[in-house]
Amino acid sequence: MAARFALVMLATMAMVYAAQAGDPELTTDFFVPMGTNKADLNGDYFTSMVFRGEPAVPEGAKIGVKRITSDSFPVLTGLGVSSAQIKYLPGGINPPHTHPRGTELLIVQKGILTVGLVDTTNKFYTKELQAGDVFVFPRGLVHYQINLSHKPVIAYVGFSSSNPGTVSLPATLFGSGIPDNVHMAAFRVNQHVVDKLQAPFKM
Amino acid sequence: MAARFALVMLATMAMVYAAQAGDPELTTDFFVPMGTNKADLNGDYFTSMVFRGEPAVPEGAKIGVKRITSDSFPVLTGLGVSSAQIKYLPGGINPPHTHPRGTELLIVQKGILTVGLVDTTNKFYTKELQAGDVFVFPRGLVHYQINLSHKPVIAYVGFSSSNPGTVSLPATLFGSGIPDNVHMAAFRVNQHVVDKLQAPFKM
Amino acid sequence: MAARFALVMLATMAMVYAAQAGDPELTTDFFVPMGTNKADLNGDYFTSMVFRGEPAVPEGAKIGVKRITSDSFPVLTGLGVSSAQIKYLPGGINPPHTHPRGTELLIVQKGILTVGLVDTTNKFYTKELQAGDVFVFPRGLVHYQINLSHKPVIAYVGFSSSNPGTVSLPATLFGSGIPDNVHMAAFRVNQHVVDKLQAPFKM
Amino acid sequence: MAARFALVMLATMAMVYAAQAGDPELTTDFFVPMGTNKADLNGDYFTSMVFRGEPAVPEGAKIGVKRITSDSFPVLTGLGVSSAQIKYLPGGINPPHTHPRGTELLIVQKGILTVGLVDTTNKFYTKELQAGDVFVFPRGLVHYQINLSHKPVIAYVGFSSSNPGTVSLPATLFGSGIPDNVHMAAFRVNQHVVDKLQAPFKM
Amino acid sequence: MAARFALVMLATMAMVYAAQAGDPELTTDFFVPMGTNKADLNGDYFTSMVFRGEPAVPEGAKIGVKRITSDSFPVLTGLGVSSAQIKYLPGGINPPHTHPRGTELLIVQKGILTVGLVDTTNKFYTKELQAGDVFVFPRGLVHYQINLSHKPVIAYVGFSSSNPGTVSLPATLFGSGIPDNVHMAAFRVNQHVVDKLQAPFKM
Amino acid sequence: MAARFALVMLATMAMVYAAQAGDPELTTDFFVPMGTNKADLNGDYFTSMVFRGEPAVPEGAKIGVKRITSDSFPVLTGLGVSSAQIKYLPGGINPPHTHPRGTELLIVQKGILTVGLVDTTNKFYTKELQAGDVFVFPRGLVHYQINLSHKPVIAYVGFSSSNPGTVSLPATLFGSGIPDNVHMAAFRVNQHVVDKLQAPFKM
Repeated sequence: MAARFALVMLATMAMVYAAQAGDPELTTDFFVPMGTNKADLNGDYFTSMVFRGEPAVPEGAKIGVKRITSDSFPVLTGLGVSSAQIKYLPGGINPPHTHPRGTELLIVQKGILTVGLVDTTNKFYTKELQAGDVFVFPRGLVHYQINLSHKPVIAYVGFSSSNPGTVSLPATLFGSGIPDNVHMAAFRVNQHVVDKLQAPFKM
Repeated sequence: MAARFALVMLATMAMVYAAQAGDPELTTDFFVPMGTNKADLNGDYFTSMVFRGEPAVPEGAKIGVKRITSDSFPVLTGLGVSSAQIKYLPGGINPPHTHPRGTELLIVQKGILTVGLVDTTNKFYTKELQAGDVFVFPRGLVHYQINLSHKPVIAYVGFSSSNPGTVSLPATLFGSGIPDNVHMAAFRVNQHVVDKLQAPFKM
Repeated sequence: MAARFALVMLATMAMVYAAQAGDPELTTDFFVPMGTNKADLNGDYFTSMVFRGEPAVPEGAKIGVKRITSDSFPVLTGLGVSSAQIKYLPGGINPPHTHPRGTELLIVQKGILTVGLVDTTNKFYTKELQAGDVFVFPRGLVHYQINLSHKPVIAYVGFSSSNPGTVSLPATLFGSGIPDNVHMAAFRVNQHVVDKLQAPFKM
Repeated sequence: MAARFALVMLATMAMVYAAQAGDPELTTDFFVPMGTNKADLNGDYFTSMVFRGEPAVPEGAKIGVKRITSDSFPVLTGLGVSSAQIKYLPGGINPPHTHPRGTELLIVQKGILTVGLVDTTNKFYTKELQAGDVFVFPRGLVHYQINLSHKPVIAYVGFSSSNPGTVSLPATLFGSGIPDNVHMAAFRVNQHVVDKLQAPFKM
Repeated sequence: MAARFALVMLATMAMVYAAQAGDPELTTDFFVPMGTNKADLNGDYFTSMVFRGEPAVPEGAKIGVKRITSDSFPVLTGLGVSSAQIKYLPGGINPPHTHPRGTELLIVQKGILTVGLVDTTNKFYTKELQAGDVFVFPRGLVHYQINLSHKPVIAYVGFSSSNPGTVSLPATLFGSGIPDNVHMAAFRVNQHVVDKLQAPFKM
Repeated sequence: MAARFALVMLATMAMVYAAQAGDPELTTDFFVPMGTNKADLNGDYFTSMVFRGEPAVPEGAKIGVKRITSDSFPVLTGLGVSSAQIKYLPGGINPPHTHPRGTELLIVQKGILTVGLVDTTNKFYTKELQAGDVFVFPRGLVHYQINLSHKPVIAYVGFSSSNPGTVSLPATLFGSGIPDNVHMAAFRVNQHVVDKLQAPFKM
């Protein structure tokens, strides 16, 4: 009987699959996770309360981030948009990073935020943003935000992907286990400098 | 044993999944529903007989529609095309609607059909079509068809999605449960007018 | 003669463009408008100040909107994201509408906002949102926002397209010139009701 | 000098175009050809009368085709759909061919039509279609239609591309100039057979 | 218990599905097959050793091919790229074929290779390539490679799809079971010629 | 005056282009640059000789690269594939980098090459590749190649984009002008370490 039950479930899944996937275009109004009865959904399914209140800044850190992507908010699946809310204490930095799967549009909600962007020709762009200013970081390019002011900053960001991913460069480069000899050859520095770069990730 | 069987099925599904989905490009010749053995497929799998004969017009209605989408005709999954056949009795209307996921190309097969289209600048386009005429309703724009003649009309439509969806505006607006105060504020009309607009959907 | 020659060339180009338009992938870091020297660009090119300050609410209206799309902010071209900022006075409504080319993610910045959404099965979803709440309106579906509170509301929205378009349904249906007989047949109401629906757009 | 200047500008534009071509999303309601004032457009712009009447069958041939693609009907540009109307006299064949950029959905309007399809595993699918029957030829696969009846057949086809292209295999293989030695090696036949295959294209 | 186990597996699958599929954009770093624990993956998962050594040429044949696609190398799923390695003995031909789902970029690694390409206007392009030369066969167009030299040739090819598919025209046309009368009508040849064309596939 | 007129037209075109750019599908066989007569094209248009011979290694460097993208080889425009050929002398490194618009598939042609890859969870993958081995670097992820052997290495790479772009991290981070205080905060190092990291780009 168990097998029969499993088969029925599998057949149901096949239907879900046929309706929801394998198509470069979204072919339903929105994604419904398997095991969820669409009839049971209400407005809550489209609502996230994650951004209520400012992001908490962890002890010892100067930046706090809350994310809403398809991982935690499944209705976004296949809809090509997601979001984050960031709080920067004075001196706080969102270090140089890329989003491998999406463009970022940042809106400063409160405070003064300094941003930087480097394109693939190594040209550097920077701007000091005030509340209400919008800055665009095109897909895959290296960028950062830093709070050089004396007051906290809050920003919202929107992404062109339901799950853009983040490659935080300090941690990716110096906290992932890339061997020292690679760093010495790549950055043309000695062991001492590599040790300094890896130190924050060895604590 | 049941568990083992289910696991084998699940492993098979994983393969199907790997081959068929998760890729912005279609990566097989065509979609094969889980549980179907591709070796058993023949020409019937690619054939729909749904459009044989004119669409039946329901009692009391003046329009009949038959649809072929990936929901009912799974071979269309991921192929970006679907179709419908519509019959309009004299006075019959396909009321203002949108297709959230596709462009519509309409071909008048028989009779004279009047069509209307409104773009996002609120510009209105209309045309009286004869048999053989083709009209294009671009993705997501509001459009309608009405038979202002004294003879039945038959049309075929093709869509740029395997499942374009239809938002029929009278029913979506006035038959879905949107509260009266929203309607009064949105359309700047009084309760009496709202009641009239909702009446057809309360029977 | 030179002008004529240039025009012939231009006409030829238009044809080339019509025939070739479109690469499914973005193939530069970002869009640079013709006539702009990329070397002259700095951080300003990626910055919009449009959202500084709350949107102005026009005299007699209860809602104000500021938009940032590729039309006004060309760096967004091809990047699949855009934004808007909306202010709703008490009683203010963003009437039922669709975005033909994108999903909308709304973030309430201040106040309490009531939202509604209808899917293609005519199922209605609604939610009262507080500051920080996020609501998702999937691509092409009818939705609205209304301020039923006694205080102004401010919201940001992000879109999954650089230019999603807006089909505002009251104006599209009753302010675009769709003939009265179409409305009477579509909504099954009489001329009097149609007159009431068109009245706000005839002033 | 003016002309020279314009040409330099045009050449620059060509480069810009080559480098930038392409936004993965359509970002306007529909395409308007350069030199056309959108304000001048009316319902005619969305209308094609090409399919009025049955396709003419050229003298000596047994098949006639009329096409509506973005080449001749520019509103289709970027909308992902196009169409054709085909007439097959008894014995008429639309010889084995592929569409490199689209799936085909065929609707038999009149008569009895035999279709064939071969997938990439060389599996052959065939079906005798009656009026109203729909058959799907997935993107890029070899297929044909033949009228084995004693009466004319009319069919409509819809494509999942605004310009799917057609690779007619007899002409592509034997009428394009591919050298004889290639044919002998590829088809493992002698010169005599190659001559026979090329003969129809040498008249 | 078996049923419970299956259900747990199914729930897991739903998560995998939500995270990996149904989205026109790739929304994870890379595909992980169901049943594989991402934590267990190492560099081997991204490595294929299939191309070590030259492709074996089957007895009696003059061409050998090794392919790396998402079917055999699942990490490619959703990444839009795949590859093949081909060895051509003197006289060896990769007969006229198309790839329904991708463009091919060929790099000659060793020897002299003659290639041919036919576009949808039946225009023929050919080139004799030396080691290091690259030739592009655009998506869906008929092309071939032949070794007209006296030495073996080795080439690598890259595709713009993780599983582009191959329609080998001699076998598709004459080895799949398309009826003789179709061939006689399509190629305008007699039964004798058709027999000769089918002969190599009847052994 | 003619020139002025042409310029006005050109400015108009730029706007048209900015607003319209992009068809999600390629709608011609291949791209033909403006000013090129398609009738004049032959096999040369599809051929690049750039990879003939090994890449030259610049004086003082240990790595040489030759690229074939749509920038230099326009037929690739819109076809979603490009390539590069890389030579690594002993000790040569292709330092940690990302491709913002594409996946990379690397084939070792000669020698032994060590590669590394870091995903967005900071997990590190590495592999020592022999001639014929293939390694995949998924879109947007940080990766490097280093020749730890005593002999030169040659590799070919294929990309899933006609112009994937390269963000070389040492130069992007430390040679683009990102201010020192950003580096100190991001990498949690002192001025001395920043100076060392910037030194190679200040010569």
